[in-house]
Amino acid sequence: MADFKEKVLELHRINKGKLDIIPNVNLNTQDDLSMAYTPGVALPCIEIKNDPLKAYEYTLKGKTVAIVTDGSAVLGLGNIGPLASLPVMEGKSALLYHFSGIQAFPLALDTQDPEEIIKTVKMISPNFSAIMLEDISAPHCVTIESRLQEELDIPVFHDDQHGTAIVVSAALMNALKVVKKDMNHISVVVSGLGAAGSAIIKLLNILGVKEIYGYDLMGVVKKEKYSNYNPVIKNLIDQEKLKYSNASDLQELLIDKDVFIGVSAKDILKPSMIKQMSKDPIVFAMANPDPEIRPDLAIEAGVRIIGTGRSDYPNQINNVLVFPGLMKGVLSSKIKNINDDIKVTTAKAIADLVKDDELSDINILPNIFDKRVVEAINSAIIETTKKGLK
Amino acid sequence: MADFKEKVLELHRINKGKLDIIPNVNLNTQDDLSMAYTPGVALPCIEIKNDPLKAYEYTLKGKTVAIVTDGSAVLGLGNIGPLASLPVMEGKSALLYHFSGIQAFPLALDTQDPEEIIKTVKMISPNFSAIMLEDISAPHCVTIESRLQEELDIPVFHDDQHGTAIVVSAALMNALKVVKKDMNHISVVVSGLGAAGSAIIKLLNILGVKEIYGYDLMGVVKKEKYSNYNPVIKNLIDQEKLKYSNASDLQELLIDKDVFIGVSAKDILKPSMIKQMSKDPIVFAMANPDPEIRPDLAIEAGVRIIGTGRSDYPNQINNVLVFPGLMKGVLSSKIKNINDDIKVTTAKAIADLVKDDELSDINILPNIFDKRVVEAINSAIIETTKKGLK
Repeated sequence: MADFKEKVLELHRINKGKLDIIPNVNLNTQDDLSMAYTPGVALPCIEIKNDPLKAYEYTLKGKTVAIVTDGSAVLGLGNIGPLASLPVMEGKSALLYHFSGIQAFPLALDTQDPEEIIKTVKMISPNFSAIMLEDISAPHCVTIESRLQEELDIPVFHDDQHGTAIVVSAALMNALKVVKKDMNHISVVVSGLGAAGSAIIKLLNILGVKEIYGYDLMGVVKKEKYSNYNPVIKNLIDQEKLKYSNASDLQELLIDKDVFIGVSAKDILKPSMIKQMSKDPIVFAMANPDPEIRPDLAIEAGVRIIGTGRSDYPNQINNVLVFPGLMKGVLSSKIKNINDDIKVTTAKAIADLVKDDELSDINILPNIFDKRVVEAINSAIIETTKKGLK
Repeated sequence: MADFKEKVLELHRINKGKLDIIPNVNLNTQDDLSMAYTPGVALPCIEIKNDPLKAYEYTLKGKTVAIVTDGSAVLGLGNIGPLASLPVMEGKSALLYHFSGIQAFPLALDTQDPEEIIKTVKMISPNFSAIMLEDISAPHCVTIESRLQEELDIPVFHDDQHGTAIVVSAALMNALKVVKKDMNHISVVVSGLGAAGSAIIKLLNILGVKEIYGYDLMGVVKKEKYSNYNPVIKNLIDQEKLKYSNASDLQELLIDKDVFIGVSAKDILKPSMIKQMSKDPIVFAMANPDPEIRPDLAIEAGVRIIGTGRSDYPNQINNVLVFPGLMKGVLSSKIKNINDDIKVTTAKAIADLVKDDELSDINILPNIFDKRVVEAINSAIIETTKKGLK
């Protein structure tokens, strides 16, 4: 473990982080300079001045997205602030490039005020093809994303919300095939009602799930707690996407439920709870880095299909299956809004990569290194966008 | 010319701009991911959370500066706006890396309001070692730079002001050696009172020049025009760094003056004006891309030493001699304020690279490709900083 720590710190130290910003032009001679800088550089400037869309052609805007955070809800670490979140943002940028070829610059903002975040992102938007919001806590992240989506002319995507919702949806589509249940007839408990939880509830509703119950630090979602919820959760309750339950605790809430989806905290799901779920229980225990229940304990307690965010157990349910292909599809189809159609399309494209005869309790999703994933999502988004335009 | 245009546009198109943001870590295996991303990435995050200075060690902050513009005063093109200025910012980033190894990300901001620029730069500052302001018009650039210098804990440098002032100072130091005149006894006319002009006046004052006159679109600087000047120029007048003249035009203003420094506009300096200057006139005609007078005409009219911003004439007076070494020195000596001492040190380091026996009318500055320049400036700044700490 000490070894691992030293290896990881060394990896981050040796090149000062995980990204390099390097010129791709020669600058060795006067001629080089006259093309890349003055006087030649005036030519693309004038082209862009006359037609702003040319910026996509002649500058890094055409291939670069911003990964923006306020460091308020960083992967397993919580509110560690913007500066300390930079290694995660660089990691995300590195993953995006590795899987999709899209370049990303990390921007950790020195504020956690939603209005200031919105304002700043608008100010820096000329440089980017799209904005990825990252590790911003709920409910701010929802406001920030929807406001920016409205006010900017480039796409905005909050992976913690929609990336998670999409990959969970893909996993659930295939898990239901395995256990031969139907989206329209299952009951689901979502544990954790932050950015990911609320987005999962929204997308599962769109996919036809009618019974979704919620659980968080305040316990089971109930009518008498309504005033305590943030506007995002209130909204889900108002629209009956999230239902009240009379259960007094998680144990009781899970009685006869088909699916547990955890985006909450380590070890909160107990074997005794699983025993009360309906036949062939499905558990996605995605708390990071330690899941809501250890997969071996879950299986022992009778879970049929268990998935986690981790690579050292089967059924890794990880956003990295989503965002590289999705961003590629969004940029290549030049759409501005990543609407519900695009999200459902992406989930289906991922699910469809596991053929019926390959599906099993321990194989509901493609491997995160499966090179077909990005291209499958990209093609599916292009196809959907074309249909939408007809 | 059509060929040159197509070549330049192709250079900018082929890789979408001139920069690439590329991971420097492997992401091919699960082990790679566990070091560069979850769960390993939490380790540098925690280190930085406990000691913010570790961000310089474990993230791109330690090697990256921001090149920030509002596109209001772009190199020879004027106010073309942020988006159209991106090719220049990318060029600047490429030059900085090529000459100094320091990486830079260009940020063209979607505003030309000084308060919004200040606010935005503060918000994005966690990601960077330093801020380079670029192509922001006067007098805003002066306010923005001094406010940011005060309010941020990283260095801020506006190259159009200080880079230009420093390279002009270096050029003048050596030109005066050639013509055997002394800083304390020369009279100088500065044409163009924007960002560069005002910074040149300030730095020449510090170097001992006592008589500096100004000329701009309103003509010769005179008492009766005082109320028309912006606060930066008023301040120079108040402090008697910029003197009034009774001359009615540039022709009259130049009578018996030793030096003409142009950061203004093409062709405004006429041969007849030069004929009235004092013995051994020095002319730095740095308007971009076309100088205040063509060097051949200047020589014909009796100029002893002529310098321009261009590489196709002798004595190229170009900021690229300054900012790579200066930024390297500032980052390596970890200073926060780029004060007058540092500026003078930099100018001297550049001037000193041309030895007395190499100095001539057509050789007052090192070549911009001279690899000694960056190291000479870097060492000089480290030395000066050490002295300052004693």
